Amino acid sequence: MEAIVYQPIGIISSPYRTRAGMPIQAAGARGIRGTIKIFPEFGDGLKDLGGFSHIILLYHFHRTQEKALVVTPFLDDQPRGVFATRSPNHPNAIGISIVRLLAIEGLRLSIEDVDILDGTPLLDIKPYVPAFDQRKPERVGWLEKAQGKADQHRADERFK
Amino acid sequence: MEAIVYQPIGIISSPYRTRAGMPIQAAGARGIRGTIKIFPEFGDGLKDLGGFSHIILLYHFHRTQEKALVVTPFLDDQPRGVFATRSPNHPNAIGISIVRLLAIEGLRLSIEDVDILDGTPLLDIKPYVPAFDQRKPERVGWLEKAQGKADQHRADERFK
Repeated sequence: MEAIVYQPIGIISSPYRTRAGMPIQAAGARGIRGTIKIFPEFGDGLKDLGGFSHIILLYHFHRTQEKALVVTPFLDDQPRGVFATRSPNHPNAIGISIVRLLAIEGLRLSIEDVDILDGTPLLDIKPYVPAFDQRKPERVGWLEKAQGKADQHRADERFK
Repeated sequence: MEAIVYQPIGIISSPYRTRAGMPIQAAGARGIRGTIKIFPEFGDGLKDLGGFSHIILLYHFHRTQEKALVVTPFLDDQPRGVFATRSPNHPNAIGISIVRLLAIEGLRLSIEDVDILDGTPLLDIKPYVPAFDQRKPERVGWLEKAQGKADQHRADERFK
């Protein structure tokens, strides 16, 4: 199939310069602030976004070099299929985070609960809408016991 | 900035051959079934995925040709900044849907609550995990009144 080509729409800034030590999910990043600079040519698309308290960010894991179809996640000691994990080593290194939107000033967004590396290229913003985005899953696989511990875990250098 | 290049990992099949008449969100697609065929080279990444009742699909809106920074959404009669909408006309046409995972047989995933066009190239699968993916937003902007009506709305041809 044809390759799909995207252009970054902006850059995410955060306090995390390296993956080691950073939170592995937003649950461990409560209160951590960052900013997004949207490139000028996309500024008009920000209209009305300020009405939303939470936004979905889709971005490119720009520091991830290795791909792997089986990985051992931070929250586990067993190798798992990469699609059953939130590791950055997926075949297409697309990250997703839901962050709190604090303010928009021109092309600059202030955000909170940030679990994203500094300098990350942003691909898309969508409003977070409970009626669209919330489910009540009956099963969360290997994460059943581990999901509540994400706030206590920090990343290490295992995912290059 | 450098362009980002992704390769589809599979293809989504659904009953929707055209956008007109299809649900605008999974809320209006309850019970609608589809399938995903994962390309053989990515099959090993599916290990352990069957333990999750819900999965996040990231895909490319392959039938969307026009980009627009301001759009009038299906659920509204006012023009809105595209990043404040879930329209497919974002600068990078990445779609996100949370679907129910019914079964995995080899490279074939059976899914339910599908609001995705037939033939859509799949970019990524992630497990849906409440501890990571659920927020309680205080504000959902222009969607405040409209979000509950998504299940009654069908798409038309406005987004080319």
